[in-house]
Amino acid sequence: MEILYLITTGGTIDKVYLERTGSVANLDTKIDRYLCKLRLPGLAIKTAHIMNKDSLEMTAADRERVLRMVERKIQRPAPVVITHGTDTLVETGLLLKRRLHGLKFPVVLTGAMTPLGFEKSDGLQNLTESLLAARLLPPGVYLVIHSQVFPIDHVRKDRKHARFVWTPPLTKGARRKTTLTRRP
Amino acid sequence: MEILYLITTGGTIDKVYLERTGSVANLDTKIDRYLCKLRLPGLAIKTAHIMNKDSLEMTAADRERVLRMVERKIQRPAPVVITHGTDTLVETGLLLKRRLHGLKFPVVLTGAMTPLGFEKSDGLQNLTESLLAARLLPPGVYLVIHSQVFPIDHVRKDRKHARFVWTPPLTKGARRKTTLTRRP
Amino acid sequence: MEILYLITTGGTIDKVYLERTGSVANLDTKIDRYLCKLRLPGLAIKTAHIMNKDSLEMTAADRERVLRMVERKIQRPAPVVITHGTDTLVETGLLLKRRLHGLKFPVVLTGAMTPLGFEKSDGLQNLTESLLAARLLPPGVYLVIHSQVFPIDHVRKDRKHARFVWTPPLTKGARRKTTLTRRP
Amino acid sequence: MEILYLITTGGTIDKVYLERTGSVANLDTKIDRYLCKLRLPGLAIKTAHIMNKDSLEMTAADRERVLRMVERKIQRPAPVVITHGTDTLVETGLLLKRRLHGLKFPVVLTGAMTPLGFEKSDGLQNLTESLLAARLLPPGVYLVIHSQVFPIDHVRKDRKHARFVWTPPLTKGARRKTTLTRRP
Repeated sequence: MEILYLITTGGTIDKVYLERTGSVANLDTKIDRYLCKLRLPGLAIKTAHIMNKDSLEMTAADRERVLRMVERKIQRPAPVVITHGTDTLVETGLLLKRRLHGLKFPVVLTGAMTPLGFEKSDGLQNLTESLLAARLLPPGVYLVIHSQVFPIDHVRKDRKHARFVWTPPLTKGARRKTTLTRRP
Repeated sequence: MEILYLITTGGTIDKVYLERTGSVANLDTKIDRYLCKLRLPGLAIKTAHIMNKDSLEMTAADRERVLRMVERKIQRPAPVVITHGTDTLVETGLLLKRRLHGLKFPVVLTGAMTPLGFEKSDGLQNLTESLLAARLLPPGVYLVIHSQVFPIDHVRKDRKHARFVWTPPLTKGARRKTTLTRRP
Repeated sequence: MEILYLITTGGTIDKVYLERTGSVANLDTKIDRYLCKLRLPGLAIKTAHIMNKDSLEMTAADRERVLRMVERKIQRPAPVVITHGTDTLVETGLLLKRRLHGLKFPVVLTGAMTPLGFEKSDGLQNLTESLLAARLLPPGVYLVIHSQVFPIDHVRKDRKHARFVWTPPLTKGARRKTTLTRRP
Repeated sequence: MEILYLITTGGTIDKVYLERTGSVANLDTKIDRYLCKLRLPGLAIKTAHIMNKDSLEMTAADRERVLRMVERKIQRPAPVVITHGTDTLVETGLLLKRRLHGLKFPVVLTGAMTPLGFEKSDGLQNLTESLLAARLLPPGVYLVIHSQVFPIDHVRKDRKHARFVWTPPLTKGARRKTTLTRRP
């Protein structure tokens, strides 16, 4: 069995609808409920649920907790997937990139624009892609979302269009070169 | 926009339930209906639906048609995903591997154990994974299914367990070396 | 709490897709799994799963078993819902009508054209309707399906169009009169 | 074809998730999209979408608009279903009951605790039940929800438990008598 570490921190992907208030919130993780919908023969996912936060509310201390959990897990090296709110996902990712040295496997961050299980959700798509990407990519820290792989220092959220974009923007001829992930 | 060619041939992934007969069959493709559920910014999928066959009924001539369609498409090089019945998917894939030379992008075959839209279907998972893998893998012919990537000449269907397995079987230490796809 | 008896016999509504054979069959009941999706406060459903049959394979003895189970249940009077294959549902219903006397609550038969959980299934719709109808209708034996209520001796299956129709056919002015269920 | 009027006013049943703000709101109606999932042979639904309001924001003038639309529709008599926020649904229903005279068909109000298309939503269940109840019940104004039928002047929302309850509370022996809808 291959091992993969899954660390959940909250974010939109994990939000639920609260009937009493008519609002959405991070109460608990539901990712396990959706992981069960995937067929993952030969893969042993070790899940650690460390917080239930909208990423706009994450503090520097919270990001340190994410870092420490990754460090602890990869003492036994294996790919890591982290689910995270999209608003500050890049910030956490950049911290991981700065502080993790000698990675033997990739660390993939992902999230969603609409919560898992809500109509038109991108949550299960992003989770599916992240699990595969974490097994295919070379060591490094990435955002995987909407069938795209971004090195964490080349991406920013485009809030208006609910997507992530390259930074700096890709010029036409540059695409393949910048996509380090095509030919690692 | 990146281009990706999607060639559909039928197979379980595309089967529908027929109310008059109480059976499932390949009538027409429904993959476009499920592709719409995915967010694929920056990706232009060019779909070619070439046949509606259970892969047990595919003839040598049918496999030649698949080959010719791939050859025609990649005159303008881009990744290719082919949906195919799982029973003879490897056979078609081996033909492609033998006959396609100088590939600049991967050709990914995929399928499903249960049709798209049926409870517990693996169809959308496999489609999601294949689209991403086709953008990440080095040139070659692969089967992508159940969060796994197999070079087409190292896989066989394990019908009893409704999954695909490595051939020859992986010995314990050999895993990472055999997974050519980890570090192409 | 109100009581309602639910008797399951198989039929299309309960069929599953078998990956090994690529066909659909009655293996076990999955109705409980779908009942959980409904909110039924104040209702205690007592389920009895008595057989797993395509209704074309039901024998006279099988129909007697259904009858005996209903008789046994309604010793403590309450509404009854029976899920059944649509091909011989009317036959079983007519037997119940002939043999059950002094009903204090309705007996509602229902089924589906496409199995529960398959795309475009009418199974959960019919189940939802039947549970409500069984609490609203006057005593008698009915088919409830596709937002329609038919007294069991005024309906036949129109296989070609995958629906049930009145027998004798309704003439235009006759509708309200024939729909005994509008104003019991 | 039987006719049924469907009037939509907004409410939780029709809310959507807004990706930019991470909140839910009434933007437009999505009920047509869910009606398509139901099989309704012989039924012609005439839909009028008159407002997009959380029912806590509905004014007296809004309720008058609902009333006038019902009055206009039933000039050609047929059953009416109204989707409405649950918080003031009963208030609107009581207005309809006071002001509509000589009803020839029922007026059924319904709504949902969780929006249509969100995991665990009761929206499609309530819509399915309301369409059937509107064809079965005697003339009058009702709330139909969660497999229950309440005359509009015998029900109140129990916000804490996200359900509706009888008012006055049913005493044990009184149930069947109060449920006017069992034997109209």
